[in-house]
Amino acid sequence: MKQLLLIGIGPGDPRQVTYEAVDALKRASVFFVLDKGTDKDDLLHLRKAILERYRPQGGYRLVQVEDPLRDGQAADYVGAVRDWHQQRAALYARLLDEQLQPGDVGAFLLWGEPGLYDSTLRILDLVREQGVLLELQVIPGISSVQALAARHQIPLNRIGEPLTVLPGRRLVEQGRIDNVVVMLDGQCAFAGLDDPQLHIYWGAYLGTADEILIAGPLQQVKARIVQVREQARRRKGWIMDTYLLRRTI
Amino acid sequence: MKQLLLIGIGPGDPRQVTYEAVDALKRASVFFVLDKGTDKDDLLHLRKAILERYRPQGGYRLVQVEDPLRDGQAADYVGAVRDWHQQRAALYARLLDEQLQPGDVGAFLLWGEPGLYDSTLRILDLVREQGVLLELQVIPGISSVQALAARHQIPLNRIGEPLTVLPGRRLVEQGRIDNVVVMLDGQCAFAGLDDPQLHIYWGAYLGTADEILIAGPLQQVKARIVQVREQARRRKGWIMDTYLLRRTI
Ligand SMILES: C[S@@+](CC[C@H](N)C(=O)[O-])C[C@H]1O[C@@H](n2cnc3c(N)ncnc32)[C@H](O)[C@@H]1O
Ligand SMILES: C[S@@+](CC[C@H](N)C(=O)[O-])C[C@H]1O[C@@H](n2cnc3c(N)ncnc32)[C@H](O)[C@@H]1O
Repeated sequence: MKQLLLIGIGPGDPRQVTYEAVDALKRASVFFVLDKGTDKDDLLHLRKAILERYRPQGGYRLVQVEDPLRDGQAADYVGAVRDWHQQRAALYARLLDEQLQPGDVGAFLLWGEPGLYDSTLRILDLVREQGVLLELQVIPGISSVQALAARHQIPLNRIGEPLTVLPGRRLVEQGRIDNVVVMLDGQCAFAGLDDPQLHIYWGAYLGTADEILIAGPLQQVKARIVQVREQARRRKGWIMDTYLLRRTI
Repeated sequence: MKQLLLIGIGPGDPRQVTYEAVDALKRASVFFVLDKGTDKDDLLHLRKAILERYRPQGGYRLVQVEDPLRDGQAADYVGAVRDWHQQRAALYARLLDEQLQPGDVGAFLLWGEPGLYDSTLRILDLVREQGVLLELQVIPGISSVQALAARHQIPLNRIGEPLTVLPGRRLVEQGRIDNVVVMLDGQCAFAGLDDPQLHIYWGAYLGTADEILIAGPLQQVKARIVQVREQARRRKGWIMDTYLLRRTI
């Protein structure tokens, strides 16, 4: 039986971590850090900063692994993601087997909230299907969605209305935009919307020293967001941004 | 200028509070606690427990006020809520005026995440419209939605799919149920759904000692949830529950 903690560590600010998450950080003996490549070095540093802050005495092992690359060009998006998850499951199974000795407690440090657009839980399900016995604990974390709302000082939903959270590629199919939060949008899907009633609240690098916030009527500010976003992405080599769209009535 | 902190304190477990929230708790000199009546005494105690844990030396004032009651029978739901918000705005304006002296920092302790189905930000907008100058800071908190996902060890969304969060009264109008989280559902709207493909993950009193979790195919477990929920509500005098519905494919 392998013991594993899935720890939500918030959007980047080490103070946006819960006491429960820090208790978990203190219990773990092996941390797994899987990253997509060198452009995300900053994200690795943010994670290490959290570890150094809450585990200043050390006494743990950090296992860093390069994630298999996903086929970004595949026509069948969900199929490509599934294949990629299978590859990662094989990798995780091997890592858990090699790295966790009896008595060890493994941990994954997950950005934001572990339940929101994070594939770790799904991959561990696949690992279980391969016969590996896992004992999991999941610790919620502040999502970038919540950081966005807090920094703009807005509610996520209006009275009695639904809130929808979706990936950028699903925005075009979205019918009514009451309160829609968009994540994982490398293509600036908001820029393709023409509705004059929409308001946008945009945020990048939330919770970090590079945080950028822009809000306003979508048609007035969308060009500026696209420009600011592109400049920031070039300067830092990567960007993480999210936004809320709301129809004003 | 009145300084006010809106602090998200999570779903009930004092360890599910962030370091940022505790820093804010330590900065406040006056805490406002508005409650709906005696049946919610437990909720007041949970809040006091958080204060006692993180402000053991005291040195603050607790201002407890009974909230105006909302007209629960009104045909026009949104209109009734708006009227109620106006009444609360008048009450808040008076409280802030009477209770916050120069140098004071006021704070509201808000359940879960301040941006999700919480009216405090909207009411403070109305207070501002009455000419009161406010300097706000909003601190995100772990929502009951996140506690639900963590305890059931499930992701909130499947690969590439949207997540919708809505109040119970909007569930019937919801078309496709990919991943739907329902809050504020006193009527057990889930029990009215007949779709044999739906799976439910239900949780009550999440993060507290009374936590209850039930999960399974909706048609198999819905009667049990209704029964367990009603027993718990009778025993304690109140209930807070939320659930995720997902279509199995
Ligand atoms: C794979 S998802 C993970 C989301 C994460 N679990 C959460 O709860 O925030 C990555 C997406 O989250 C959003 N995101 C994550 N961290 C962010 C940050 N610090 N600032 C802005 N957006 C962020 C971006 O939309 C990004 O494309
Ligand atoms: C007025 S809303 C506030 C939601 C809160 N802002 C949050 O983020 O959890 C109240 C609803 O939240 C849900 N809720 C809040 N706390 C809960 C808990 N501890 N367990 C289960 N559901 C809870 C219930 O659906 C309840 O009807």
